[in-house]
Amino acid sequence: MNALADEAARQLEAAARAARAAAADLARALRPAKDLALREAARALREQASTILVANEADLAAAPDLSPAFRDRLTLTPARVEAMARGLEEVAELPDPVGRILAEWTRPNGLVIRRIAQPLGVIGMIFESRPNVAADAAALCLKSGNAVILRGGRESLRSVAAIHAAMVAGLRAAGLPEAAVQVAQTADRGFVGAMLRAAGLIDLIIPRGGKGLVTRVMEEARVPVLAHAEGLCHTYIHEAADPAMARAVLLNAKLRRTGVCGATETLLIDAAIAPGLLPVLVADLRAGGCDFRADARARAICPELPVASEADFATEWLDSILSVAVVDGVASALTHIRRYGSEHTEAIVTKDAAAATEFLNGLSSAVGLWNASTQFCDGGEFGFGAEIGIATGRLHARGPVGLEQLCTYRYHVIGSGQVRP
Amino acid sequence: MNALADEAARQLEAAARAARAAAADLARALRPAKDLALREAARALREQASTILVANEADLAAAPDLSPAFRDRLTLTPARVEAMARGLEEVAELPDPVGRILAEWTRPNGLVIRRIAQPLGVIGMIFESRPNVAADAAALCLKSGNAVILRGGRESLRSVAAIHAAMVAGLRAAGLPEAAVQVAQTADRGFVGAMLRAAGLIDLIIPRGGKGLVTRVMEEARVPVLAHAEGLCHTYIHEAADPAMARAVLLNAKLRRTGVCGATETLLIDAAIAPGLLPVLVADLRAGGCDFRADARARAICPELPVASEADFATEWLDSILSVAVVDGVASALTHIRRYGSEHTEAIVTKDAAAATEFLNGLSSAVGLWNASTQFCDGGEFGFGAEIGIATGRLHARGPVGLEQLCTYRYHVIGSGQVRP
Repeated sequence: MNALADEAARQLEAAARAARAAAADLARALRPAKDLALREAARALREQASTILVANEADLAAAPDLSPAFRDRLTLTPARVEAMARGLEEVAELPDPVGRILAEWTRPNGLVIRRIAQPLGVIGMIFESRPNVAADAAALCLKSGNAVILRGGRESLRSVAAIHAAMVAGLRAAGLPEAAVQVAQTADRGFVGAMLRAAGLIDLIIPRGGKGLVTRVMEEARVPVLAHAEGLCHTYIHEAADPAMARAVLLNAKLRRTGVCGATETLLIDAAIAPGLLPVLVADLRAGGCDFRADARARAICPELPVASEADFATEWLDSILSVAVVDGVASALTHIRRYGSEHTEAIVTKDAAAATEFLNGLSSAVGLWNASTQFCDGGEFGFGAEIGIATGRLHARGPVGLEQLCTYRYHVIGSGQVRP
Repeated sequence: MNALADEAARQLEAAARAARAAAADLARALRPAKDLALREAARALREQASTILVANEADLAAAPDLSPAFRDRLTLTPARVEAMARGLEEVAELPDPVGRILAEWTRPNGLVIRRIAQPLGVIGMIFESRPNVAADAAALCLKSGNAVILRGGRESLRSVAAIHAAMVAGLRAAGLPEAAVQVAQTADRGFVGAMLRAAGLIDLIIPRGGKGLVTRVMEEARVPVLAHAEGLCHTYIHEAADPAMARAVLLNAKLRRTGVCGATETLLIDAAIAPGLLPVLVADLRAGGCDFRADARARAICPELPVASEADFATEWLDSILSVAVVDGVASALTHIRRYGSEHTEAIVTKDAAAATEFLNGLSSAVGLWNASTQFCDGGEFGFGAEIGIATGRLHARGPVGLEQLCTYRYHVIGSGQVRP
């Protein structure tokens, strides 16, 4: 390992130890202190807006070869800074998840057992492109009593540093430890590698970014990871679907925003309803600019549709492209989803409650919807108030990850001198 | 990697794929089928008891150099086989954790969101010494809808294989997939290594055994692990403790069973109460055969006590040895625990509710008790009915791991055609 990477690893270890100490204090911080930190950080963001924007301009100037889409994600504007500040204030409005009594029961011997929510500890946030993730993630970690180490993309180092300064101003104003929110001081890749190996120092890694980043993190991390690598979501139009509902739900599920993980990538449609309905759905989507990849049975109904390869059904398009397959009932739809899906979000449109129940019960995905758009897979839409990401792994949390999911728990047992036989 | 290890890795991959397929069926199995499998397996254990005992004798004969304690853990008797069978029947009596509605709420747009418990999927159980863990663990996995791959110690291969045969008989009688419970076919260490690396094939590894096994698993595993490496538990006698309660609770916490992870290893006692109470506690414990390692302040009160080194306070004795330190109130007790503890189980004895609250709130351990013995950290004592192990990691589950903790969750969202703005 080269000297830069060694130095980066040392920096990470120092940051993690400081974060661990801060987390111990943060776990016991009361809601008013955390909310004050958030509101003071929002104030600092607004007061330092021009400084933040100047830093962002320097980042943009230093990276002239970015694609237009990348550049757009990287750019901060006065409106985006204001949105960051408002986001912090919204998190301050959310209930404090720490200390919730999740369950309570009394044993025959009189012991009262309580399961109580507590912060995870130290979270490592690795993200790309959008500098505002620094503020959003720091807010959620802080409110849930967790310390956080932020590592943004190398293109946004100055922007993230400026945002971090505002977060620290908030912590200072509230008397909370400044090490509760830290940023990577170096652009060296060794820092990320050190984060991924920091089992025992970092409790959870959350990657936000493209598939390349998330896949690398999931493969290399020795620390638990909360993430999803793909959102290969399906909308299944069952033979007993209401046609008008099918049209509205599918259009929204595919085209509301094509780049989000909850966008539908594959349409499954029952053979019994396809001859009449598929051409209508295709026309709706084509009018919205959508292209298609269709199996032979769909092309028998709509011959103009391009051919789908095997690989297409395993592709998350993140674009105005929809894969289409004709199926024969719930069981065959489930078989397709089990083969090609990513355990993210799937929906069925039908008036048949039994079919809906069979479909939902047969899924293992994080989210299953009946008669609603897959685009609802979102922390805000779920009522969590905010979301740090979406998880499809099987442990700890699945689906939208909000404040409650950033907590673990412990037990308090209240006795009167009981001893165990 | 040598040929044996390669072959072992291939075996593991084949077993994991079969387990994954079985898990898909098992996730949808209804309670009566699972309970029938458990009861038929219990019947098979009883009917095949002599076969199982003969296999166990062969294991014992093949390992003549075991310590008496190890030999005892390895030995099966008619009583232990009957206990195994009864254990399966007890799990059949427990409620089915799969499909529980953990939370339900309605959004302003009318969407009804349910969080529903579902099995984790495929569990890898790595254990040492006691062959009956095979039956206990298989029962809990099966009842919670999980497939399991069992890997016992090399000394118990024949015993575990015989127990496995009874489990398979139960699965067969209930029409459940036989790959729901599998055992390692090879003693090669490569099989364990392959289990630890099987991210994506195995969802969770649970090691049960000595510190060496658990530490190796936690260090090498790429798969999530539910475990605790140490149970360095503390009992803190606060200055406002009822002396009679302190004596009874401490005696039980230390000496009920010294080899369990919930046994108290360190006594912390407030300076204000120590002069009168410490000698009494020492006499109680000495009468029970306990030895001591004491700090200077404790030895100032009881000069006969052996000296404690720094390392002693970080030692999990698992024996009739108690470390003793005099402290000055809740904050100093917490400082000691944070420094030397293993985040497992700690107890305070006091009549002062404010002190108890400060102590419990200041802990980050999985279990904190007020006026009760640390030996209560146990799934049965918690009312879980059974326990597959205890976890002190921060994600997914902490404390006793029972049926509910072997589940994850997913969301069902019920709509009436909603689309996202």
